[in-house]
This record gives sequence, structure tokens and C-alpha cells, in this order.
Amino acid sequence: MTEEQFSSYHPPLPPTTEEDRFSWLRLLRSRRVGPTTFRRLMHEHGTAQNALVALPEVARAAGVEGYEICPPGVVEAELKAAKAAQARLLCLGDNDYPLHLAELSDAPPILWLIGDPALLRRPMIALVGARNASSLGTRMARALAQELGAAGFVVVSGLARGIDTAAHLAALPSGTIAVMAGGVDTIYPAENTHLAGDIARQGLRLSEQPMRLTPQARHFPRRNRIISGLAQAVVVVEAAAKSGSLITARDALDQGREVLAVPGHPFDARAAGCNMLIRDGAHLVRNAEDVIVALPALTAPRSQPDLCDLMQQPAPPPKRSLRETAALHSLILDRLGPSPVAEDQLIRDLAASPGEVAPVLVDLELEGRINRQAGGLLSRVN
Amino acid sequence: MTEEQFSSYHPPLPPTTEEDRFSWLRLLRSRRVGPTTFRRLMHEHGTAQNALVALPEVARAAGVEGYEICPPGVVEAELKAAKAAQARLLCLGDNDYPLHLAELSDAPPILWLIGDPALLRRPMIALVGARNASSLGTRMARALAQELGAAGFVVVSGLARGIDTAAHLAALPSGTIAVMAGGVDTIYPAENTHLAGDIARQGLRLSEQPMRLTPQARHFPRRNRIISGLAQAVVVVEAAAKSGSLITARDALDQGREVLAVPGHPFDARAAGCNMLIRDGAHLVRNAEDVIVALPALTAPRSQPDLCDLMQQPAPPPKRSLRETAALHSLILDRLGPSPVAEDQLIRDLAASPGEVAPVLVDLELEGRINRQAGGLLSRVN
Repeated sequence: MTEEQFSSYHPPLPPTTEEDRFSWLRLLRSRRVGPTTFRRLMHEHGTAQNALVALPEVARAAGVEGYEICPPGVVEAELKAAKAAQARLLCLGDNDYPLHLAELSDAPPILWLIGDPALLRRPMIALVGARNASSLGTRMARALAQELGAAGFVVVSGLARGIDTAAHLAALPSGTIAVMAGGVDTIYPAENTHLAGDIARQGLRLSEQPMRLTPQARHFPRRNRIISGLAQAVVVVEAAAKSGSLITARDALDQGREVLAVPGHPFDARAAGCNMLIRDGAHLVRNAEDVIVALPALTAPRSQPDLCDLMQQPAPPPKRSLRETAALHSLILDRLGPSPVAEDQLIRDLAASPGEVAPVLVDLELEGRINRQAGGLLSRVN
Repeated sequence: MTEEQFSSYHPPLPPTTEEDRFSWLRLLRSRRVGPTTFRRLMHEHGTAQNALVALPEVARAAGVEGYEICPPGVVEAELKAAKAAQARLLCLGDNDYPLHLAELSDAPPILWLIGDPALLRRPMIALVGARNASSLGTRMARALAQELGAAGFVVVSGLARGIDTAAHLAALPSGTIAVMAGGVDTIYPAENTHLAGDIARQGLRLSEQPMRLTPQARHFPRRNRIISGLAQAVVVVEAAAKSGSLITARDALDQGREVLAVPGHPFDARAAGCNMLIRDGAHLVRNAEDVIVALPALTAPRSQPDLCDLMQQPAPPPKRSLRETAALHSLILDRLGPSPVAEDQLIRDLAASPGEVAPVLVDLELEGRINRQAGGLLSRVN
């Protein structure tokens, strides 16, 4: 069963009993059940308990033989680890669940929280950027985080080195949220252990992943959709060409978020990604005021919309090459499978130019969605 | 008689005899006759000779007593100086007169040329920027001028220090035009005497001003309209906030030219003007390709339009704050006269905020259109 086809369902009602929450986690931790499939199953079967009963047959009908649902012991271990870490479970549909995030068709069904959940009710801006940031970049991240904090915004970032670290540190007194790629109790990179502790005490850490999960490459793009999903706007503070921050920016555009970027001189390679974003329509950011005036509205996020209605609304206006790139992503992934294909062959099949395809392949590789092998062979990661 | 009210006349037929050219120059060098009034007088009186006869009465009717037309000796001296400098006279309506420039309602009735007039038939891009340019800025100007030259464009600039000098130098082999603020034979700044000689030999220098005129502050904005008027696009390579290059950019927008700018990091004050332009809608420039793709068409400029028709066409779409600033310019100039007015009073009269008005006042002062006196008093320069 694929994830992308069932995004038009109403969000499920949140669980109300311990048993119900246990079943939610068990359904979500079952193999091949992502956020969208979770929502589809809940829609079709009414409760997580019913969905768990039906799941093996659903899998068989989809051609997956010998499917087994997640054993209860796995969920028990996750709950025990959460208790040890003083993590709190927040379910899609709960009152505290952030409204902007709930609007996504692939909104995480659950989030583990460590820290102050009240931050989720305040307006949020994401600051993201390079891990190997320049001195200018980290100074800019610090200045923006402080100014946005002073203006009442919570600063969301990913606890990575460089820009993320500078943004979290500067926003600690005013409010900051770290979205983790692995378990909410699993600090990565290790050098940010102290900062992660400060954020748990003064801010908020959250993750949709199981407790104790060590993040791998493929978890980062999933995490990035939460960063941009929480925020009203995503500011790319510093990013080279073909960097992970550009993937976050593209995802943010797909989610209908404002994307903004801090420019740099074209001779500074570390500004190439940001300049590309601005050239393609992202707002230019010189200071926090530029961010604030670019927001669609200064009020609180709107109330949770009917997703079926959302699906029938006209698509937002195209954002030029970023959206075209996203389309090329899908085309490439459609054509690739687990068996390696020559890059030349792929480019011919797509009837595209190497110059168009090459940067997209780099993106997909960074996202951990394709593998590059010796001899120019490509395969899809499943 | 004011200059702004009579811009909808057809351009006059160019002079065909020596006597006719003499009368054109004499009319144009008469006091209070600028390009727009020149065109109006030619429209009303058919020939420059007739206009010269009528001029004293026209002046008297406009309330100017004791008006005298330009003495013939002044024109004789200008023609003698032009001969000595090997300068050629080009009149509006002549075959060689650049079509893009002729489209302006205040197109110069005459231009003095030293160098190769064939350059005026090729597509042109203006590169402008700070006199006190940074090393990054001059490197960028050089790179853009070389790449644009290689792509077949003539590089137009103003022979100033910094960005202008770098652009002219790099474009010497491929083609460059220096538009002078004073006489075409009067090199300013003196340190560019050698470069000006090279441009006369390998490129083209031109000016609408009388020969031997030493440029003063008020001549530079007039000159800048010719730089942007010649070009299909104006690239601001480096400019601080409130710099003269931004005036050129605003004029270029008013003329319907593409405006582009090279970004820089917000912490670099020398990039503030360019970043402001990009934020307000100018195209971001990383290299010559970004300039070329932003051009409205890669073909030769279109044939000379009927100016009356142009006046009836809908105005181009508003360009946000740059155009608003231009409107504020007019409002301020309307309210100021030769008698000093307090800045506070002016701001109250305009019902505007000091933050809006202050930068516009700086522009106007730079343009030499207002005077600032002790005690916050402002007056209009006539």
C-alpha cells in the first residue's frame, strides 16, 4: 500500500483511553504503516483496534505475504522508555496538537514531547541552514532568533550543528522547539547533549519516531516536514547549492508555507542555495522584520480545516523551478526500483537534460531515497 | 514653463542642414529649455528657427521677464570645441540615434559622440554601482562585463570610480559606452583620463551636455536617465542604502527598464541597496546568465513607437515601494519652494511618517534637487 494516495481523509478522533493509545502506537509501529496509511486505516476501520485486526488481510490483498502486526512488547518497551525520559504522548486530534501541523495530509499521528507543550500554542518560525555554517551565517541565525523571539515567535529548528545550534541557543530564553530526527530521548549529534538538556528544561523537544531510535539518513527528510509543518514560515539562513536545507525549503513550499532566505554575495559558495531560492521567488531576509512582514497573517493559525474540502480547493500558484523539481523527483522515483538502472538510461527515459536531472538525483541521494552504485548505476531505496 | 507637462508630442524631424543644426543647438542651449520643452516648442513652431523667434514671447507669457535666447557665439564656441575634440553631433530622429533612448519622453534632443557610433546599434546592458566599491564588488563588475560582452551586449556605464571603472575596463575589448555627466570632452574623475581615452578609441563616449562643461551634482541624475535609457536592463552591482545607484534604479523602473541587482550578506552594509532592490522586486543576479534570462526579449529593440500612442497605453504594473517612493518625491517637490521650510512641518503637511520621508529627502538632496540648511530647514533648488 502506498502512502501518497489516501490523503483526503478526515483526521481520526484522538484516543481517549490507555488501551486506545496503546493500539494507536501499535498500529503506527506496524511495518509499512506511515502517517497517511494510518489515517486511511482509521478511516476505514473506525478504531485502531479494528484496524489492527484487519491489517494482515489488508497487507495480503496488497500482495504482502506473511505480514505480522507490531508485537505488543515493542509498544510496551516504547512506553517504558518514554516514562523513563519523562516524555509525553500527544496524538493527532488532541487539544494541544499544533493546528498548523494537523493541516498536513501526512501529519504525524503521534508526537513524543519532552519539555513545555505550551510552546506549541504560540506562532512558530523555523530557522534552518548549513551544518558547516560560516561565521556570518551563525551570527545571522543568532540575530534572527533573538529578534523573532523578542517579537513573540517560537523558533523551531532541528538541533543540528551550525545554523540550528545557533538558532536554538539564541532562542532559549524566548522559546525554542527542537524537532528530532530519531527518538525524542536520543540526542544527535552528541555534542549537542547539553543544549538538548537545556531545551528540555526551557523549551521543547519532540519527535514522531519511536523512543531510542538512532536517526539515519532517511529519517531527516521526514523530520524536516515536521519542522516546516509546525511553522508559519521557514527561513533558510545559509545554504550551499544542493544542500539538505533546500529540500526542507521545497517541502515547505509543498506545504504552502512561506519560504524565506538570507542572501549572500554570489562569490560566496555558502550562499548559493539561498540566492537560488530568492531568485526562484523566496522572500529576501535582512532581519526579523522582513520575516514578520512576509507572514500571511500575524494572527494565530486558523482553525483546523476539513481535509476533504482542502483537497477540492484549487492548487496554490506554481512556484516555478522548485515545484518543477518536485515533479521531476516523482518522475525519477517512479522509474527507479530496487534493480540498478544506468543514470544515462534514466535520463534518456525521462527525455530530460543531464543538467536538469543531476541536481535532483543529488537531492534524492541526500534524502536517502536512491542509492548510487559504481558505474553510474542508480536504484531506489525502499 | 515646466518640463513635465509636454511629453506626449511626436519627436521632431531631425535637422538636415548646417543652419538647422545650429538652430537646434541654439534653442536647446537657451535658458530654461530642457528636452521636454524643446520638444514642445518644436511641436508648436515647426522648426527650431521659428521656435527661437517665438521663445522670448513664450517666456514672457510664462511670467519670465527680460528673457534672452542663447547668443550665437555660445553655439559657435561649442561647435569649435566639438571639432577640436573630434566629437560628432547626433540628433533625435537621426538614423543612428538609439531607438531605446528615443522612446523616452525626455530623450536628449542632441548627443555629442566621441568614438564608434556603431555600438549604439547593438543591445546594451547598464552596469552601475558604488564608487567606493568593495573588492567583491569590483570583481563582480568585471566578471559580469566580460560575460555580457562575450554574449554580445555593449556595457554602458558612467565612467565613475569603482564599479563603473571595473565594468568599462573589462568590456573594452567587446564594446563599452561611457555616458558623461558633463561635456563629452571633459573627463571626470581626472584619474580616469587614460580609460576615457581608451573608450574613445575602442568604445564610445557620449553626452547631451555642452562641450567643456564641468559636471556638477545636478548633472548626474540627468546623465543617469541616459544610461538606463540606452540599456535594456540596469544591473546594480553594489550599492549601499541611500546611494546614487538607487536613484538610477528608480529612474530605470520609471522608464520601463528591467532592474537587476547583485545580492550580498545583510551584515555587509555595501550590499544594503542591492538587497533592498531585490526585496522590492528587482531580479537577483548571480552571473551574466541571470541578466540575460531576465531581459524582456533577446531581439533588437523594437522600432520607434508613436509617443502619442505610448501615452494612451495602460501604465506598466506598479513596482511596489520604488514607485511609491517616486510619488513621494513629487509630493515633496510640490510642497517645497525656494523659501526654507522646517522638515517637521513638511512631514506633518504630507501626513507621512518621518521614516518614510527621511530616505526620500536624502535621495532628493543627492540628486541636488533640494537644499538642507541649518536647523532642519529644507528648500527646493530651481
